[in-house]
Amino acid sequence: MRIFLKIAYDGTNYHGFQCQNNANSVQDTVNAALSDLFKKEMKTIGASRTDTGVHAHGNVAVFDVDTRIEPSRIAFAVNARLPMDIRIVESRRVPDDFHPRYTTTIKTYSYHILNRTHPDPLFRNLETHCYYPLDEKAMNEAASFLVGEHDFLSFCAAGNSSATTIRTIYSAEVARTGDRLTFTITGNGFLYNMVRIIAGTLMEVGQGFYPPSHMREIIEARDRKAAGPTALAKGLVLERIEYPDLTSSDDKCMMTKN
Amino acid sequence: MRIFLKIAYDGTNYHGFQCQNNANSVQDTVNAALSDLFKKEMKTIGASRTDTGVHAHGNVAVFDVDTRIEPSRIAFAVNARLPMDIRIVESRRVPDDFHPRYTTTIKTYSYHILNRTHPDPLFRNLETHCYYPLDEKAMNEAASFLVGEHDFLSFCAAGNSSATTIRTIYSAEVARTGDRLTFTITGNGFLYNMVRIIAGTLMEVGQGFYPPSHMREIIEARDRKAAGPTALAKGLVLERIEYPDLTSSDDKCMMTKN
Repeated sequence: MRIFLKIAYDGTNYHGFQCQNNANSVQDTVNAALSDLFKKEMKTIGASRTDTGVHAHGNVAVFDVDTRIEPSRIAFAVNARLPMDIRIVESRRVPDDFHPRYTTTIKTYSYHILNRTHPDPLFRNLETHCYYPLDEKAMNEAASFLVGEHDFLSFCAAGNSSATTIRTIYSAEVARTGDRLTFTITGNGFLYNMVRIIAGTLMEVGQGFYPPSHMREIIEARDRKAAGPTALAKGLVLERIEYPDLTSSDDKCMMTKN
Repeated sequence: MRIFLKIAYDGTNYHGFQCQNNANSVQDTVNAALSDLFKKEMKTIGASRTDTGVHAHGNVAVFDVDTRIEPSRIAFAVNARLPMDIRIVESRRVPDDFHPRYTTTIKTYSYHILNRTHPDPLFRNLETHCYYPLDEKAMNEAASFLVGEHDFLSFCAAGNSSATTIRTIYSAEVARTGDRLTFTITGNGFLYNMVRIIAGTLMEVGQGFYPPSHMREIIEARDRKAAGPTALAKGLVLERIEYPDLTSSDDKCMMTKN
């Protein structure tokens, strides 16, 4: 049967999510824990690569196994074999033909900025520190221009392997709580470094380098040079990946089981 | 002149705040950074010991120095010589006779609990994970019995060196945001392990081991065995230390300077 894993991790000590030949990745670590649990070599299929230092509350991977362990208990058994900076936060059975990348997804990322004089050591690996005052209202207005279907080539780093640079953004908002700004963006997919380049651009808007409406011109330019710098990896969290088509088939699958 | 430092740190990798002969402490690390900056051996006087693994957003230390560095800029110069898990978040001049321990203080601590099935790896060193459902309303009601002047002997670990176990608590509240519970307590002083023992007791209330009103009986027992277990150090943050008597003398001091 095919098992769906929702994976949370602190990306600080990993070279990204995806398996690497010569470096330590989250996926390699999860594969090793599964192999130890099931006493044979196990391989997962991941939903989303994340870069070195990027975190996740809800990345997704699947694998196939024959086991008598109740699917929801697999999370506990794998967690007992994982370092504390990676946790399986959910495990469940999905249809055997479910593929985490070739299925319609809605992804949500958050980007975290501490906006005050000195950094906070408690969250030093989880947020970008910005000394200069940021205008979160201007940033939120700039973010609103991202919503809709656009060609996001201006926010795409070299090395992107997607066939098209057109994506649909469902929501993009910046909110402040005290000294902390959170940028949250939801869409049907994201180009390589797209959220970090958008975050870097919003921080320029927040410092008053250009007005919020300039975001529209940056999008229309279809040129990476028109946008701001790539914000640091450590402020980024892949919050969740939703599969709108999965729910019903998953329920069916659960019903078959019970 | 005497310089006041407000210090924030992630206590995970330190054997508490106070200088140790045979272990790595926050204060030793700050002293070393100051010694490097001022090119002679520097010693600070700390306000509050914190245990191994306990964090701070606002511990306090003072030291004496003759320097032409503007007091508020000392924070930047020291931070350049500190590891990222310790930050000086404020530096300013205070009267030469100001002592961070022998002055009236109001201290505030926060204790953080994640209440869901699996831990969150992003905050693994900053919160206690509780698998069992916690009733935050019951915990908040229990906390209300702490407010006022009481003998807190029941919440005092062996090794306490205070002359009296009577303290005044100004406020004590438990609040939930989603899966996270925060216990915040403010008082004129705290006994050894007092906040962690209270947090452990509140978690027993939250699980329904006894009703909130039992808190009154625990206080009246004046017996450590009446209270719950000591909650883990990693959930505790020394948020701030206020010196009500300092403001005016400090302003005077600032005026003398300017």
